[in-house]
Amino acid sequence: MYSLFVRQHFMIAHSFTGEIFGPAQKLHGATYVVDVEFRRPELDGDGLVVDIGLASEVLGGLLGELNYRNLDEAPEFAGRNTTTEFLAKAIFDRMAAAIERGALGAGASGLTEMKVTLKESHVAGASYEAALGA
Amino acid sequence: MYSLFVRQHFMIAHSFTGEIFGPAQKLHGATYVVDVEFRRPELDGDGLVVDIGLASEVLGGLLGELNYRNLDEAPEFAGRNTTTEFLAKAIFDRMAAAIERGALGAGASGLTEMKVTLKESHVAGASYEAALGA
Amino acid sequence: MYSLFVRQHFMIAHSFTGEIFGPAQKLHGATYVVDVEFRRPELDGDGLVVDIGLASEVLGGLLGELNYRNLDEAPEFAGRNTTTEFLAKAIFDRMAAAIERGALGAGASGLTEMKVTLKESHVAGASYEAALGA
Amino acid sequence: MYSLFVRQHFMIAHSFTGEIFGPAQKLHGATYVVDVEFRRPELDGDGLVVDIGLASEVLGGLLGELNYRNLDEAPEFAGRNTTTEFLAKAIFDRMAAAIERGALGAGASGLTEMKVTLKESHVAGASYEAALGA
Amino acid sequence: MYSLFVRQHFMIAHSFTGEIFGPAQKLHGATYVVDVEFRRPELDGDGLVVDIGLASEVLGGLLGELNYRNLDEAPEFAGRNTTTEFLAKAIFDRMAAAIERGALGAGASGLTEMKVTLKESHVAGASYEAALGA
Amino acid sequence: MYSLFVRQHFMIAHSFTGEIFGPAQKLHGATYVVDVEFRRPELDGDGLVVDIGLASEVLGGLLGELNYRNLDEAPEFAGRNTTTEFLAKAIFDRMAAAIERGALGAGASGLTEMKVTLKESHVAGASYEAALGA
Repeated sequence: MYSLFVRQHFMIAHSFTGEIFGPAQKLHGATYVVDVEFRRPELDGDGLVVDIGLASEVLGGLLGELNYRNLDEAPEFAGRNTTTEFLAKAIFDRMAAAIERGALGAGASGLTEMKVTLKESHVAGASYEAALGA
Repeated sequence: MYSLFVRQHFMIAHSFTGEIFGPAQKLHGATYVVDVEFRRPELDGDGLVVDIGLASEVLGGLLGELNYRNLDEAPEFAGRNTTTEFLAKAIFDRMAAAIERGALGAGASGLTEMKVTLKESHVAGASYEAALGA
Repeated sequence: MYSLFVRQHFMIAHSFTGEIFGPAQKLHGATYVVDVEFRRPELDGDGLVVDIGLASEVLGGLLGELNYRNLDEAPEFAGRNTTTEFLAKAIFDRMAAAIERGALGAGASGLTEMKVTLKESHVAGASYEAALGA
Repeated sequence: MYSLFVRQHFMIAHSFTGEIFGPAQKLHGATYVVDVEFRRPELDGDGLVVDIGLASEVLGGLLGELNYRNLDEAPEFAGRNTTTEFLAKAIFDRMAAAIERGALGAGASGLTEMKVTLKESHVAGASYEAALGA
Repeated sequence: MYSLFVRQHFMIAHSFTGEIFGPAQKLHGATYVVDVEFRRPELDGDGLVVDIGLASEVLGGLLGELNYRNLDEAPEFAGRNTTTEFLAKAIFDRMAAAIERGALGAGASGLTEMKVTLKESHVAGASYEAALGA
Repeated sequence: MYSLFVRQHFMIAHSFTGEIFGPAQKLHGATYVVDVEFRRPELDGDGLVVDIGLASEVLGGLLGELNYRNLDEAPEFAGRNTTTEFLAKAIFDRMAAAIERGALGAGASGLTEMKVTLKESHVAGASYEAALGA
């Protein structure tokens, strides 16, 4: 299996609901450093997993929709705790849809799996991975 | 599949038995930077893989039992080479037992896999991963 | 010149005032990974720059006063843009005061300089450094 | 499953063929930081995945054949785009052959999987992984 | 003294002249991860060392002039070994000129020192630092 | 001022004397990742701060004298606490002597300052820096 990753980041405010979150129930924030890893069993005709420049640009665009926001006021996340693991899935879904609509080029149709990892600090992070195109 | 990781470290002395170890047969030591990655197919009701604060605290406690020790004198490792890969499994087993006895909270019963990685320097490391609750 | 550093982090929400900040004028947030570097020309009698465990604990305590907060509502920063560079100085001042009141032990009286660095992502950060005890 | 990784690097010049590569169609270059991860279900009699010193030395040797070269003139890559993902596979194949011929010692016959990751910068990289000995 | 850094990278081919360079006399290449650190004794009226977004954008533009090139054919470096330390100074000079012509905004006139660091791998790098506006 | 750094590591056992060290009074160990930074105001005739390959090789040799040892039994450190900051100075002195005796080549006579940094984990480290040739 081949894979390729690109890295970008975004910075948001949010708070969590539930006693388990302790002081993180208060409004605070985070920088998330995001790695998206694209996987496929064979390279395309150009010798690529995916166009790395395009992948980075599309990721930047997707994160731009979240960047510099208070996620507590984001309608798309209403009633949800925007934990690191939840956001990993949210970004996975956006990138999967971008691949589906051809934003990563025709060659990206060969992608079979994807993993999104968010580091929230030098000591913690979370990820979501799944098959594509199911 | 979702995952979440937390990072801690510990510092020990040890030596190895066997010609293959060369100069590492002498008493020396290491700093191990430990990542424990917890995995599950679905998030719990709070939107979590596991309580990140609790996971970090429990890991700190487990590593505290090894930290600042000469592993050559640790009864639990008698007759074993405490290589990086061996220690990855030893920490996996301790964390799996902690999950089993409820130390990571009731929600942690949904965890299905775990991976423990030890970096021994900027250029080498080892890990052990397996299913949980088998 | 000797130096020693310890690392901790904190997570906050804030917004900035001024057109130069563009989208960062909106409420957002950041994880700051903080390095505090202590300097002195000679080691103390124990062979130390400063007690590393105590330094890390005191830094954790200072950052705990900022962690999980919306800095826009922090009275101590009223009317100020809590930029990365501004926060580096704010943490410098708190640590300098801690040294002054003996929180880092008697040996810390030999410290002559300090530098506080905040990384806000994998691609940006800021710092403040100055002599101590002036 | 146990794993162990070692890290080395190499520095090459190359260019790519195909409009998708944009400015990278011109002769340029890269530093690749290479992690090779060896995997096996059980440790050998010494408590090892593989002899870490030997693994690092063999990897250094394999990369030495690529280091300080213009890959556009490498006969073994004629007519191929030496992308990061392509090179990950090329190094995988060389290491698999080295294991096969016993260069990593007799114990290495227990290895069942391998993964080769190349980071080309702080924000991008690629990898190839597969079963061994098929 | 306050400082702020931004990070970008570029990828080039080159060769060196002189026996001391050994195999690096052959055409090869490198990824350089570049940190530019801007320094000043006091923050500007917005609480900034420099506009971080603008600084990153200007650095990206400067590196774009070097990126994806064979430096052996760059007229501006004719007859020079484009070592890591030499390139650190070359980027310093370009950024100093950019500050001089106002590319980093009016506030950047308060900058007094700058440091440019290039990492060529995970184990080596070089830098150049000097006062500004001399 | 120009600088160049190279990175290597070593792994030792030791213990500390003095109540301030708490549990670190027991025999334990550490991996130290060592950066040596060489500085000079002007480059030599080849465009170098110092021969990077030679510098890395000499550093490897110096650390080889400490690697895989119990420093409590090292005659050269008898009666001293081999703290991270103490070891930074010890390596500085060895490298300064190596420069003095010409081990880094004739060009290294132009070096004017040096800094040695030891990271003992992902969250702590120490350094020693001074002028050379005084």
